[in-house]
Amino acid sequence: MSFNIPRTEKKRVVIVGGGFGGLKLAQKLKKADFQVVLVDKNNYHQFLPLIYQVASAGMEPTSISFPFRKIFHKRKNFYFRLAEVRAIFPERNMIQTSIGKVSYDYLVFAAGTTSNFFGNKNVEEYAIPMKTVSEAMGLRNALLSNFERAVTCADEEEMHELLNVVIVGGGASGVEIAGAISEMKRFAIPQDYPDMDKNLLHIYLIEAADRLLAGMSPESSENALEALTKMGVEVKLHSKVVDYCDHKVILESGEEIPTRSFIWVSGVSAVDIGNMDHSWLGRGRRIKVDEFNRIIGSDNLFAIGDQCLMTSDSNFPNGHPQMAQPAIQQGELLAQNLVRLDRGEPMEPFRYNDLGSMATIGRNRAVAEFANMKLHGWFAWLIWLVVHLRSLLGIRNKVLVLLNWTWNYITYDYSMRLIIYARRAKEIIEREIREANCHWGEDVLGPKKDDET
Amino acid sequence: MSFNIPRTEKKRVVIVGGGFGGLKLAQKLKKADFQVVLVDKNNYHQFLPLIYQVASAGMEPTSISFPFRKIFHKRKNFYFRLAEVRAIFPERNMIQTSIGKVSYDYLVFAAGTTSNFFGNKNVEEYAIPMKTVSEAMGLRNALLSNFERAVTCADEEEMHELLNVVIVGGGASGVEIAGAISEMKRFAIPQDYPDMDKNLLHIYLIEAADRLLAGMSPESSENALEALTKMGVEVKLHSKVVDYCDHKVILESGEEIPTRSFIWVSGVSAVDIGNMDHSWLGRGRRIKVDEFNRIIGSDNLFAIGDQCLMTSDSNFPNGHPQMAQPAIQQGELLAQNLVRLDRGEPMEPFRYNDLGSMATIGRNRAVAEFANMKLHGWFAWLIWLVVHLRSLLGIRNKVLVLLNWTWNYITYDYSMRLIIYARRAKEIIEREIREANCHWGEDVLGPKKDDET
Repeated sequence: MSFNIPRTEKKRVVIVGGGFGGLKLAQKLKKADFQVVLVDKNNYHQFLPLIYQVASAGMEPTSISFPFRKIFHKRKNFYFRLAEVRAIFPERNMIQTSIGKVSYDYLVFAAGTTSNFFGNKNVEEYAIPMKTVSEAMGLRNALLSNFERAVTCADEEEMHELLNVVIVGGGASGVEIAGAISEMKRFAIPQDYPDMDKNLLHIYLIEAADRLLAGMSPESSENALEALTKMGVEVKLHSKVVDYCDHKVILESGEEIPTRSFIWVSGVSAVDIGNMDHSWLGRGRRIKVDEFNRIIGSDNLFAIGDQCLMTSDSNFPNGHPQMAQPAIQQGELLAQNLVRLDRGEPMEPFRYNDLGSMATIGRNRAVAEFANMKLHGWFAWLIWLVVHLRSLLGIRNKVLVLLNWTWNYITYDYSMRLIIYARRAKEIIEREIREANCHWGEDVLGPKKDDET
Repeated sequence: MSFNIPRTEKKRVVIVGGGFGGLKLAQKLKKADFQVVLVDKNNYHQFLPLIYQVASAGMEPTSISFPFRKIFHKRKNFYFRLAEVRAIFPERNMIQTSIGKVSYDYLVFAAGTTSNFFGNKNVEEYAIPMKTVSEAMGLRNALLSNFERAVTCADEEEMHELLNVVIVGGGASGVEIAGAISEMKRFAIPQDYPDMDKNLLHIYLIEAADRLLAGMSPESSENALEALTKMGVEVKLHSKVVDYCDHKVILESGEEIPTRSFIWVSGVSAVDIGNMDHSWLGRGRRIKVDEFNRIIGSDNLFAIGDQCLMTSDSNFPNGHPQMAQPAIQQGELLAQNLVRLDRGEPMEPFRYNDLGSMATIGRNRAVAEFANMKLHGWFAWLIWLVVHLRSLLGIRNKVLVLLNWTWNYITYDYSMRLIIYARRAKEIIEREIREANCHWGEDVLGPKKDDET
């Protein structure tokens, strides 16, 4: 296997990851005189801000996913490759991936973050994360299966395990999924499970810090706490999860909460690329970059978005918040800077234009902050809807999501409560195992052979 | 685990399987004085006539799946249970399932059919069937992954394996999926894979008999063959698949077709329930029933739809065709007959009212037969659309499918080309393994204990 891309006289930009940052960069390089190669381990871009709606069975994965090949229809000098990066060899301007090697003139890391389990093996094995569409589907299947099992469960202890939902992490994802599951409990569960006592269903939101939504103002935190509490979510602040065993979440205080629906949205760590030089990494394993998103000490290596740590922006001395906007803005500027660099012109330093942040809590309820404005309640929710609808790629997805929201809003119904797994043929399972085993160490570049194209 | 259903003075009807037949029966028993228990291994009804569109990435699983709990909202004396039947104990009026035992007064088998691999282990392991939504998702993932791999494939032999699609079985499913993939080749592939030579993509449709659509008239068979051939599908009649090895489909003639996209829609066999008395079974492992759908020799055991074999209907001495209509009509009549039986009144014999059959071949093209009418081309396709849209459950699904079709029709685009797997937590994988191991032999009813409710 190889990348099978012709080497032309154009310089090659390889982008690792097609999230908000990588996608924007690839799009903005359209007119530039580069050959652009986008590498991602999925064949689609994921619109992560709505992922909690997929997890809570309110929306289909299709509505928030967009195939890369479709996004780049008719684009010249562009190549998409479905692959995972295993290793990087800066001295040879080459990366090793699951499908072979590829050389670059400019390399941009935009692989984002992955769930951080803080080294706890039990949590890593049993918790259900919510960072990708696949994980959201897995979470949905787990929740619904647990409800089904609860209906016929004769053992009281197991019943509590099946009906307690424990969400760890009080950031935007935690608040949003807690709100969505509480609405499921209020509207969908009584209709779907008339023989289940919905009062047995408890939703816990666990946060180590002293407030929810630590990235927003204390006012918004207070608003979110109040709203969730009213909606029946049991919020536990100052609570740190130290372990998970025998279907119980164990808190630092010694308290145990039985659950088989153990959702982990607490903290992230930047995606680690096999043999990456550890001196490159800063807090949260983010790659340290200068004001041009260039990896410190390198000429042609860059990192953008959640995966990078830029401390040169005076308003954000600890790095930018890990959300869509900084990634998009960095991708946009880097597209221009690569052109400048290539022409020998000076690059422009990045400054983040803070467009604000928001989190939805439930029906008619959100918190939002823009510049000096702090909004909450119905109006914030409406703004949340409009902003997210506008940012979705493609008319079809916009129409689907709008219809979906309208339908859910009017009917109080989440109708996508299907437990669906894709059946895999043996051929595919074997390939997956093979590919998982083929980590970079076993298949590194030979000392001299440059056989990639 | 148990069924956790109260025993009331009402007699209990247990329905095994919520396909077209079981669902119709459960719905029609609404006003009857029974307690109705529906057992299915999925939590949703599947509209199988459109499954090939899910497999060919033209439609989302949600659009053709409908959660049972939603269908039976507000229904009294109705219980849905997510479970698989392992064994039946007629002498004790009880069945054993994956979640426990349940007793019945009347038991109805409506579990349909499963793919028949005719005992070939290689075919069973490596072929991709298309009988369920999960399998259709698996097929879609496999096709798209193979195309992605083909783009970077340096080995010519492997390239052919990745780009040949071999469909075995020339019935309606085979014709429909062949047509859909050929349209994918024509419209979607050139746009999505500009660096792939689409002429390398070959679609083979293999049929053992001398014509396609054996259930329809020779005219329709001829029409389908002609249309598919024009669309570039390589149809091989009189060809029997005898094995699959080293990524090659092997025909009886000795011919080998290399492929990793090996689709199996050739023949079905009725679902087998663990310890079922083999003397009950007839051709295709279908359960032999009398004119009232009662299992021959029993009082309170019934079977309907694809799973049963009724030879008393004078127009269908070899049993009814295994498609939606006979199942629906049998479910409808059995609902009435159960009420009659319970009242001591004579039951009415079943006679199939043949509403015709059809198969779609592609854009603007289908074959359809009603009574003495034989249609093909654009008008048959329009009828196909209307009939299928009407039969879909729920307004939401109707709207979604109509929008989807309209969109695809206008844009020539299939936009759902996502390779998505649900990520499973260790907890779930372990449960699945546990449940798969717990076959009926290990957990049968004790000799005396009647602990089910």
